[in-house]
Amino acid sequence: MKPPIPDYLTDILDHVRGEEGGDVAGYIRELRDADPDLLALALCTTSGHVYAAGDADVEFTMQSISKPFVYALALQELGPDAVNGVVGMEPSGEAFNELSLDQNDNRPVNPMINAGAIAVNQLINGEDSSVEDRLEKIRALFSRLAGRELQVDHGLCASEMATADRNLSIAHMLRNHDIIHDEAHDAVLSYTGQCSILVTTRDLSVMSATLAGGGVQPVTGERILTPEVCRLTLAVMSSAGMYDGAGRWMAGVGIPAKSGVAGGLIGTLPGQLGIATFSPRLDSQGNSVRGVRIFERLSRDMGLHLMSADHHSVPGVRSITREGDSTIIRLQGTINFTAAENILHELGDHSLGGKELILDVSRVTSFNLMGRRMVKEGLRRLREKGFACAIHDPEGVLTDLEFSDGTYADTVAVLP
Amino acid sequence: MKPPIPDYLTDILDHVRGEEGGDVAGYIRELRDADPDLLALALCTTSGHVYAAGDADVEFTMQSISKPFVYALALQELGPDAVNGVVGMEPSGEAFNELSLDQNDNRPVNPMINAGAIAVNQLINGEDSSVEDRLEKIRALFSRLAGRELQVDHGLCASEMATADRNLSIAHMLRNHDIIHDEAHDAVLSYTGQCSILVTTRDLSVMSATLAGGGVQPVTGERILTPEVCRLTLAVMSSAGMYDGAGRWMAGVGIPAKSGVAGGLIGTLPGQLGIATFSPRLDSQGNSVRGVRIFERLSRDMGLHLMSADHHSVPGVRSITREGDSTIIRLQGTINFTAAENILHELGDHSLGGKELILDVSRVTSFNLMGRRMVKEGLRRLREKGFACAIHDPEGVLTDLEFSDGTYADTVAVLP
Amino acid sequence: MKPPIPDYLTDILDHVRGEEGGDVAGYIRELRDADPDLLALALCTTSGHVYAAGDADVEFTMQSISKPFVYALALQELGPDAVNGVVGMEPSGEAFNELSLDQNDNRPVNPMINAGAIAVNQLINGEDSSVEDRLEKIRALFSRLAGRELQVDHGLCASEMATADRNLSIAHMLRNHDIIHDEAHDAVLSYTGQCSILVTTRDLSVMSATLAGGGVQPVTGERILTPEVCRLTLAVMSSAGMYDGAGRWMAGVGIPAKSGVAGGLIGTLPGQLGIATFSPRLDSQGNSVRGVRIFERLSRDMGLHLMSADHHSVPGVRSITREGDSTIIRLQGTINFTAAENILHELGDHSLGGKELILDVSRVTSFNLMGRRMVKEGLRRLREKGFACAIHDPEGVLTDLEFSDGTYADTVAVLP
Amino acid sequence: MKPPIPDYLTDILDHVRGEEGGDVAGYIRELRDADPDLLALALCTTSGHVYAAGDADVEFTMQSISKPFVYALALQELGPDAVNGVVGMEPSGEAFNELSLDQNDNRPVNPMINAGAIAVNQLINGEDSSVEDRLEKIRALFSRLAGRELQVDHGLCASEMATADRNLSIAHMLRNHDIIHDEAHDAVLSYTGQCSILVTTRDLSVMSATLAGGGVQPVTGERILTPEVCRLTLAVMSSAGMYDGAGRWMAGVGIPAKSGVAGGLIGTLPGQLGIATFSPRLDSQGNSVRGVRIFERLSRDMGLHLMSADHHSVPGVRSITREGDSTIIRLQGTINFTAAENILHELGDHSLGGKELILDVSRVTSFNLMGRRMVKEGLRRLREKGFACAIHDPEGVLTDLEFSDGTYADTVAVLP
Repeated sequence: MKPPIPDYLTDILDHVRGEEGGDVAGYIRELRDADPDLLALALCTTSGHVYAAGDADVEFTMQSISKPFVYALALQELGPDAVNGVVGMEPSGEAFNELSLDQNDNRPVNPMINAGAIAVNQLINGEDSSVEDRLEKIRALFSRLAGRELQVDHGLCASEMATADRNLSIAHMLRNHDIIHDEAHDAVLSYTGQCSILVTTRDLSVMSATLAGGGVQPVTGERILTPEVCRLTLAVMSSAGMYDGAGRWMAGVGIPAKSGVAGGLIGTLPGQLGIATFSPRLDSQGNSVRGVRIFERLSRDMGLHLMSADHHSVPGVRSITREGDSTIIRLQGTINFTAAENILHELGDHSLGGKELILDVSRVTSFNLMGRRMVKEGLRRLREKGFACAIHDPEGVLTDLEFSDGTYADTVAVLP
Repeated sequence: MKPPIPDYLTDILDHVRGEEGGDVAGYIRELRDADPDLLALALCTTSGHVYAAGDADVEFTMQSISKPFVYALALQELGPDAVNGVVGMEPSGEAFNELSLDQNDNRPVNPMINAGAIAVNQLINGEDSSVEDRLEKIRALFSRLAGRELQVDHGLCASEMATADRNLSIAHMLRNHDIIHDEAHDAVLSYTGQCSILVTTRDLSVMSATLAGGGVQPVTGERILTPEVCRLTLAVMSSAGMYDGAGRWMAGVGIPAKSGVAGGLIGTLPGQLGIATFSPRLDSQGNSVRGVRIFERLSRDMGLHLMSADHHSVPGVRSITREGDSTIIRLQGTINFTAAENILHELGDHSLGGKELILDVSRVTSFNLMGRRMVKEGLRRLREKGFACAIHDPEGVLTDLEFSDGTYADTVAVLP
Repeated sequence: MKPPIPDYLTDILDHVRGEEGGDVAGYIRELRDADPDLLALALCTTSGHVYAAGDADVEFTMQSISKPFVYALALQELGPDAVNGVVGMEPSGEAFNELSLDQNDNRPVNPMINAGAIAVNQLINGEDSSVEDRLEKIRALFSRLAGRELQVDHGLCASEMATADRNLSIAHMLRNHDIIHDEAHDAVLSYTGQCSILVTTRDLSVMSATLAGGGVQPVTGERILTPEVCRLTLAVMSSAGMYDGAGRWMAGVGIPAKSGVAGGLIGTLPGQLGIATFSPRLDSQGNSVRGVRIFERLSRDMGLHLMSADHHSVPGVRSITREGDSTIIRLQGTINFTAAENILHELGDHSLGGKELILDVSRVTSFNLMGRRMVKEGLRRLREKGFACAIHDPEGVLTDLEFSDGTYADTVAVLP
Repeated sequence: MKPPIPDYLTDILDHVRGEEGGDVAGYIRELRDADPDLLALALCTTSGHVYAAGDADVEFTMQSISKPFVYALALQELGPDAVNGVVGMEPSGEAFNELSLDQNDNRPVNPMINAGAIAVNQLINGEDSSVEDRLEKIRALFSRLAGRELQVDHGLCASEMATADRNLSIAHMLRNHDIIHDEAHDAVLSYTGQCSILVTTRDLSVMSATLAGGGVQPVTGERILTPEVCRLTLAVMSSAGMYDGAGRWMAGVGIPAKSGVAGGLIGTLPGQLGIATFSPRLDSQGNSVRGVRIFERLSRDMGLHLMSADHHSVPGVRSITREGDSTIIRLQGTINFTAAENILHELGDHSLGGKELILDVSRVTSFNLMGRRMVKEGLRRLREKGFACAIHDPEGVLTDLEFSDGTYADTVAVLP
């Protein structure tokens, strides 16, 4: 079977190809020379399936898309407290000053602006690291996130350095405020190096899906980041990833995202998807014009808006039936807190007849910690009220049958 | 059975009762006289189950918690374009000026700051509405959201008006910039009226759950708001609901939220839960000290963080088995885009043996639009490749069997 | 003799009449209806001579030109400390927020912006004053400054009040920050009243000359303000009188000034002149287009720039001659510190011959305190060195002949 | 005779010696090691007399005091338009952003802040100048202004460069905005070089007096700057020389001034005096504590406040008397516009009797251009009315006797 998803992605690309607005970044030759008509889209699920369309294997530099990943690396290496010591996590609102440093403590307000990204870059591999070693550490991590060896575009990096005055200005001011301690030139070189790592749209979708999946690279299966690191990184992307327009983006698209000036754009839907697009034509804010269009369409068509009620609701109880003296409660789906509540509520509401209660979990996809604990506690309490309780779990999804009082749940192999 | 959730909520309240920091709001007598030891917590699921602990039936005024609901009402009445005409949806970052008006177009930057809320209040019931009629319209909506008739505390409202200089200043400036047109006094009275509506913690959890559920009041079942209105409202709450600390809140707690100076605090988890707490002791930013503690704990213990991967992942395929010439594919859970992708991927990967393919959807909780479309399209394509395809759907969850080419899926009542 | 000054002023008016840029203020009918071609210029010397050209007797409202005079009145009534308690004296630079309140102490940054002027107005006649009494006190002072009974244009004041949202916003915010305590409406009415006082260009030149002359109304001879009050008022006019363009104005024109939206513009040259112009066509900053042109020309042609060296230099010694045993030192001009230094320097430098020294002060215009003290001390020290010293002062300009040691200077009626 | 001025200056120093507040600058060793008890005061008149007290011959680095002089040099070399192209002349108000660049055009707001001073430094000796040549040009000018060969403290300059991050940040941002084009390091080195020029308090008083005197070095008599350059420089010093406190300084002290972090402080009274103090103890704003005290006292005691009416007023007519058929009008002092007006007014007011009018200018100190023109024109008009007019000018102060109609004034050698 030819799966329909690539066709769907191709349709979307064809749809936005008519959008001819925007220009390629013009401040260095390497970006200026980019083919403005390159266009790509890739999705990667947290289960590791990648779908790509268009020029998804063309390499380009990550630029600002490197920011959330280096932030995640810093959180992973040093922990949130150390990272918070040099960078905040608040949206910058309308840029309230030239450098976006907090007016009270001089920390950059968040890691998605250049000042914050430069400060965070310095945390990698220790303060005394050489630029080469620091960049290699970042390149190595990014390679594990992408699942292949990525390279640094040293030529483009050198071009960037030749026009890096704004970043050098920031680096010197960060030194002035004791936020960083490396030479300003080296700090900017190191940051520019991370921006110069070459990726494909396909790579970015996988890297983004690693954040979506709580830190497990979905293709290789390697755990690279902790769930907490991913959660914090996505939170900052959601409030500060799209610069001044963060609020409008979360309202309209509802997917934590980050764009790069080479034309890349990633979005991350927690637990579900990494999305990446590539089109070098930029709008006046530096976001890819076609990339933004694609995300708007994906969000609308696919119901991916994080604030949408749709893809979250999971009633846990499928049915409650009576077979002779037995009441059979069939659970379904993923049993998290919300689903477990639904189950316990049904158990409490029903005037359960008969003497035996059988909990059929054969349709349950999985339990999370809170869901398992609550369902078992509900069963224990029913047993205390005099019901004979049993679990029908032919595939062992519950995994652990011990109650909070040290007793165990009974099981039943065959339903009545 | 005594359900364990109330016990759990009570445990949480006991846990935070030791937190004695913070003070009740002191600027008017009515708030100053509040009992600082009142404490309550309530949850309402999108399926309409309410769990409450502590002083959950004590009434207090909504204050700023009214803002997202009146914003939702304005969106519902006038549509996003009209509302965007008077208020933005960007975080304010560090308050960059006294009044938080956008420096380019003078609109308040978002509806969660007072300037924005006053501008939005004016949209309700038409510009020519009397204060009484406008407030009655708001009160009536809030009552439907809460599921009972709410009242305005006119005494407190009068006290607020006696010290309303800051809001009057804002209202005059909004008039000056042509954002509002009513008399400044009336505009502030109308806004103060909405803030003076009396609710209980229980009410707030239900109101919040209505936003979580895409606009359906979960207890009464009434559809009050559209899903789009809820989505936009939650997006703005997520980026601007907790003032200057919005970024830290989304990182640490991860639940779109709004606090009020009387001690209330609501959080909304899309598709899942409305949460409300009440404790009048405020921190220096005006948020309830114990309320914040409770949310931190709920988020951590219950895995409710919106940026967490945990409660989102739903592999759609449970198993693929061979029975003679038939391959049986058992689906499970909620089939949204992510799950449908998982299904199609499995179908493509497997070298399906035999001549017949049966899709067993008896364990599926529900299909969303994209999920249904993708699964049917996958089936159609397999049929084109020569497989005999049939669906086992004893409970009719697929609802619609028509393919994109106008043909229909076969069904099979009994699995081999 | 027909004096040439009026001709000169008429020439200047003719010169700028070709300048047709700018528009009359349009926000209320009374200003909108002003004849855009009205044009006037008046000068008043600190000796009380008034020269006027054009429509110098047409009345118009003072508007913001009232600000320095009410500031002076407040300083006079309450002293600098009390006034500094509610308003600063710093330039606002680029308006850094909507209301120009100091971000640390919430005081308006200076009395030339509306927030500052509203705060200062409240100081007049005590906090408990009625609006009528306060305005009457201001009107009475302004009348003494102008030398005739001025009237309030109550019709225009009422029109201003109908569109006074910006000022009402400011007044409420000042109340909110405890800077003022009157009702916001009354505070704005009182301030708007002061702006609505009717003056002619001639009046303004006299009022301005009173500030120039250290507080003595030059026509009536009445001392109305102290020199210190005038000094502070002029200092604030110099740094904040022309809003955002204060620096350019002081560089280009060099005359402390204040403009009003009705088309008036005053300039004050300390010790010398009050200048006033009137032309209702305003530039985008609200300054009179032709008024600005006139001031530029006056400054250039007449050498009135306050930072210019020209009109300040006064060598005190005219000549030193020898007549037999007598050395005669002829002083001249105004003997202030600079001139006195020049005199003492000459006395020290010269190897004074003979036995007698005669100081001829018959050409001296006047001594100031420091000048008198220094000249006498120099004379005393020469006497100690053995010279016979005498003063030739036929007109008694030195007034006081007592030395610091209690002895007296000799005088000589006729020079050798 | 021992002149009293040095005693007076010594008294002032003794008076402030009790003021022990403040600390020497601590950010580099060279400044940190300064003797905190050094104290000096020097005055230089525009006639070139220097009075000094205390440690007036101790050398220290100019630091920010170099700013107005390099600004003057740039104005002199390139003219106001070119200089305005890279720097504004507005006060910065409360520092509204980290770098004080204008939010519209990115120019530094004035040349007294570091960003402005760095931009202005780049204008000297052409954009392609080496740092050495540029600094030598500045050193050479400063030497001419001081009247002796000044040296650069290269050791201190090197120490400053080691902690120059703030200035390097500014220089890179200026490059980023195309305000400067030199390497950031070189731009900062060049600026730091100008700050490292060693001067004594005595030197500074002479340099300041050169600005006061319209550009003529008062000791050497060399014309170094044009009057316009001095006027613009003093205007900017008056509005921006004392940073955030510019308004309070002009109100309280009333002398355009500039301070340096090594402890120097200069003040310039147009047409009269250059003043300089030195004391390394700084207040929290970086101004010399004792220096500020000294200026406050000088302003008050000596009546030097620029906004004061005192030292400006010069009535031009001393007396009008009748001798037979002749009316003799005796003029006095400096005849500028104000004095000339006074004269013409008297001429017009008096019903001049007799047939002959004699203008006695023997007591006149000097005429400025406008004064001369006006007096002659008045005389011409009287002649037209039938008076025989003659001038008694034994010392030729009027210099030019030609009237506007090409005729000449008569002269009379002896008064009747």
